[in-house]
Amino acid sequence: MEKVKIIEVGPRDGLQNIDFFVPTKQKIQFIKRLAACGISEMQIGSFVAPQAIPQFQDIREMVKGIKALKNVVLSALIPNIRGAENALSCGIGKFIFFFSVSSAHNYRNVRQTPEESIKELRHICQKYLDDSGITFQAALATVFGCPFAGEIKTDAVLRAVEKTADCGVTEITLCDTVGFGNPKMIEEKFSACQKRFPEITFGAHFHNTRGLALANTLRAYEIGIRSFDAATGGLGGCPYAPNSSGNVATEETVFLFEQMGIKTGIDVQKLLSVCRFLQKTLPQANITSSLFQAGLPKKHKLVDDSKRGKTK
Amino acid sequence: MEKVKIIEVGPRDGLQNIDFFVPTKQKIQFIKRLAACGISEMQIGSFVAPQAIPQFQDIREMVKGIKALKNVVLSALIPNIRGAENALSCGIGKFIFFFSVSSAHNYRNVRQTPEESIKELRHICQKYLDDSGITFQAALATVFGCPFAGEIKTDAVLRAVEKTADCGVTEITLCDTVGFGNPKMIEEKFSACQKRFPEITFGAHFHNTRGLALANTLRAYEIGIRSFDAATGGLGGCPYAPNSSGNVATEETVFLFEQMGIKTGIDVQKLLSVCRFLQKTLPQANITSSLFQAGLPKKHKLVDDSKRGKTK
Repeated sequence: MEKVKIIEVGPRDGLQNIDFFVPTKQKIQFIKRLAACGISEMQIGSFVAPQAIPQFQDIREMVKGIKALKNVVLSALIPNIRGAENALSCGIGKFIFFFSVSSAHNYRNVRQTPEESIKELRHICQKYLDDSGITFQAALATVFGCPFAGEIKTDAVLRAVEKTADCGVTEITLCDTVGFGNPKMIEEKFSACQKRFPEITFGAHFHNTRGLALANTLRAYEIGIRSFDAATGGLGGCPYAPNSSGNVATEETVFLFEQMGIKTGIDVQKLLSVCRFLQKTLPQANITSSLFQAGLPKKHKLVDDSKRGKTK
Repeated sequence: MEKVKIIEVGPRDGLQNIDFFVPTKQKIQFIKRLAACGISEMQIGSFVAPQAIPQFQDIREMVKGIKALKNVVLSALIPNIRGAENALSCGIGKFIFFFSVSSAHNYRNVRQTPEESIKELRHICQKYLDDSGITFQAALATVFGCPFAGEIKTDAVLRAVEKTADCGVTEITLCDTVGFGNPKMIEEKFSACQKRFPEITFGAHFHNTRGLALANTLRAYEIGIRSFDAATGGLGGCPYAPNSSGNVATEETVFLFEQMGIKTGIDVQKLLSVCRFLQKTLPQANITSSLFQAGLPKKHKLVDDSKRGKTK
């Protein structure tokens, strides 16, 4: 049986750029409802300085509210040693380290060169990788294009992956941060990485900024990628394209795979209820999912319609 | 050089269900602007009784206004001999005959069984196919699912194609009328048809009702389909899912292919201006295209960013 892992990033990527604070209780409810859909892994927030991303100033309290959740890996973004310490003390079991292949983007994002970011990653890995029981994942931003630097060469991606792998990380996500990717480019960059680093598990993180996210998802699946980030409701947006579509919607990603007979373990009907919950409780959120607008197709009956007579 | 044909259906499929009349001049402007984008084939309307689709009551006048357009094949839907006569007398050079594989859908749509529709098609072909210089195309609706009958068996599709081909038609479009299709189903149905009828040119007509249209487009391309219907702005909607996304957007389809190096002959920048024109002149129209919201990516520069120093 073919199956894929869908990592829900709505609570983290979906909420981080929203310009109002979502009350802690509401975030906890959002995460609990997502977990009830069968999601097996979720990025719940970032351990960053509150002034950098005020949305996650309550992350300790949030984690308390969701710690008891079973059957779901809760991960968080940790930008530095301090974030890692805080995450560990909260009981977070999976760390996501994030940096951009593009110097221009990384500098604007975290005020560091990619080299400085990798040095940070090495410190964190040296301290936590071996005996803390922590799982590590690295997310490489702007792999498929950068709003400042334009196109990113595959060689630059390979070098960034190499340095990340050298730190001991074995799960690496390639991110189309601003929706510049297309299926051909997806294939080129992922295939080059898979070929060169067969020991690494690569995941995909696509944004639907220009409508291509599910086509990119399909192509990534076709070449062997089995881990996909997605945000329920298509939350997320892009700071460089106001009002644009956000992360690829979890419900559409699940729908794509399940309709093709590829198991996700996620109940799409329940995800649509979470969208309704979001719409009600966060009316300011930009829910861009077509599936949410249209609803699921009525349960298919298999009809050999050409044999039927005139409809009454 | 790989290339595809994109058939613009916005003036026909995009406007037919809009519940207000678009003034003739505006329709003519819309079509002229589309033609200026490099579109080589366009469905401009339907030769039906005005009471059936009031939007096209002015089709004769419309055709007068666009007849002088060069380098673009103007086609129209013709439901019967009478429609064919009218289309011919207007100087329309390509006829689209439309019926549904699903009895239930066909009956609701045109008050005929599919068998009666095929009989009509045979009459029209006998009268016009050989010596009128008219090109024929048949569009088979609900091939990938019907809002009434549910799933449609591939055998039923094959039989409908066979009867259509028997009338002498050599271009057949398989339509995902309500957005029930997924890449696996697209491959199954198209491949079965291509294998059984190698002499027929098959085209695809997808709706983005549930977000999967570009993934479906990609899969159809991968198995050899080279003709795709699309509507600028993603106009179209679905009468069975109010407020939902419509036809796959022409600008996103062109963007998908051109980004992959597959030529469409269409200027996507100009298409986005047509979207702006639509937004201004038809504010009631539902423009659902993400690419229109976000805009094109800035012109890519190829940067090996890992070699650059700290951004100033």
